[in-house]
Amino acid sequence: MTRGRSERVLVRHWDGSEEHRRPDDLVVEEPLTIEFDAVTVTTTMRTPGHDFELAAGFCFTEGLLGDASVTSIRYCANEPAADTEYNLVTVETDGAPVATPRLGLTTSACGLCGAESIEALWERLSPLPPSDMLISADVLAGVPERVRAFQDLFGTTGGVHAAAAFGPSGEPTVVREDIGRHNAVDKVVGRMLLDGDLPARGQGLFVSGRASFEMVQKAWAAGFEVLVAVSAPSALAVETAAAAGLCLAGFVRDGQLNFYSPSA
Amino acid sequence: MTRGRSERVLVRHWDGSEEHRRPDDLVVEEPLTIEFDAVTVTTTMRTPGHDFELAAGFCFTEGLLGDASVTSIRYCANEPAADTEYNLVTVETDGAPVATPRLGLTTSACGLCGAESIEALWERLSPLPPSDMLISADVLAGVPERVRAFQDLFGTTGGVHAAAAFGPSGEPTVVREDIGRHNAVDKVVGRMLLDGDLPARGQGLFVSGRASFEMVQKAWAAGFEVLVAVSAPSALAVETAAAAGLCLAGFVRDGQLNFYSPSA
Repeated sequence: MTRGRSERVLVRHWDGSEEHRRPDDLVVEEPLTIEFDAVTVTTTMRTPGHDFELAAGFCFTEGLLGDASVTSIRYCANEPAADTEYNLVTVETDGAPVATPRLGLTTSACGLCGAESIEALWERLSPLPPSDMLISADVLAGVPERVRAFQDLFGTTGGVHAAAAFGPSGEPTVVREDIGRHNAVDKVVGRMLLDGDLPARGQGLFVSGRASFEMVQKAWAAGFEVLVAVSAPSALAVETAAAAGLCLAGFVRDGQLNFYSPSA
Repeated sequence: MTRGRSERVLVRHWDGSEEHRRPDDLVVEEPLTIEFDAVTVTTTMRTPGHDFELAAGFCFTEGLLGDASVTSIRYCANEPAADTEYNLVTVETDGAPVATPRLGLTTSACGLCGAESIEALWERLSPLPPSDMLISADVLAGVPERVRAFQDLFGTTGGVHAAAAFGPSGEPTVVREDIGRHNAVDKVVGRMLLDGDLPARGQGLFVSGRASFEMVQKAWAAGFEVLVAVSAPSALAVETAAAAGLCLAGFVRDGQLNFYSPSA
């Protein structure tokens, strides 16, 4: 029995002059442990739902998968308690087991996502091929509003990030929500991986928050041509996008945006 | 030579009808590896500055420190390149080395911050003593604006989180900014630890984003009496705050707020 994605509680709302009780919907946050070819590679705090996509996407964007293909994804039934047995997902591949998982003691909350150094990432990933995705600033500026229409959980709880893949006309093709920004991206990438839609040529990636280094890393790994972020990029994100040849647009809000990399 | 906290770049700004070039300040994001009594415990993507506070705060809020005291904090000089030698901080204590660091293969980006399970956290921390901090909803609702006056880096870059400790009248006592929400909290807690101001009785903790499980965990570990979040809490955060006896206020914005736990 897995929990839902939101839960209703009674809160005391203070409106500036007095308190009254009213219902409030909270986003559910639960740990998910991901095993990759019998090696535990991460535990992430996520919103339940699309767990297989999350597990597959994580293994892909973190470079664990390499040239191997995913052969099975399943919940582990070895956990004793019924309500936690959906908090462990096992991804199996047809490749050789990963001798040295990229994740280790140096990995951290909001840390480097397992890449031991930025140089290691830049060595692992080749620059993207030149983009032939013709998409105007006008279209990019409209993406957040188009994705917003699919952010059901945000509408209910106000406490959840979204990521989306979108096509040349700006229409969202995959939208996922999660309390974790990285998880939302991994769910989108995982869906595309399982559908055979990677690398994501001719597609852009939208994120509802900032463009950190790790967001650029994941967009690069999945082969997106554009990364659109509602909020600010970091200096390292801009450098990494330049190294990738990835078009990076930030502060995409109120019909405006900034381009942080040469290509558009 | 460490990098600053922000860097200026030239961007192409699209204002809805045309593009023009203009300067934009980006928040700096760099990896920081933390060693604790000769064991590498994490690498986090952080904004440089207050690195010793971050390292000390992380070790404290993650339960690594236990009853030991910090005897020294220093940058490692063993790194070869001059520009990366400030990306490794070593924390040493007078305690026995931690036999089993809480961080391991199960730790992840935006994951469980090293606690192997939520139950483990609840066993490690005792409920907080009853609060004697008399603070009105009116005062709590005013905290974000008072902290905002100290968010210099946010004002410049728009891409950085803040955390702050505040006293009974709502005045901020320690304010820290970082690209990582967890880092901003750890910097505040680290400063208080080094000043001998923990546990943080009679103090509240402000966070500029959401109240996730990990934010509540860190507030609980440091002994704050109130946690004030500008955005939404998660269901697990509300449950954990109840277990801690921690007053949790969310959506603290526009002069309003919600109380998610019994005490106020």
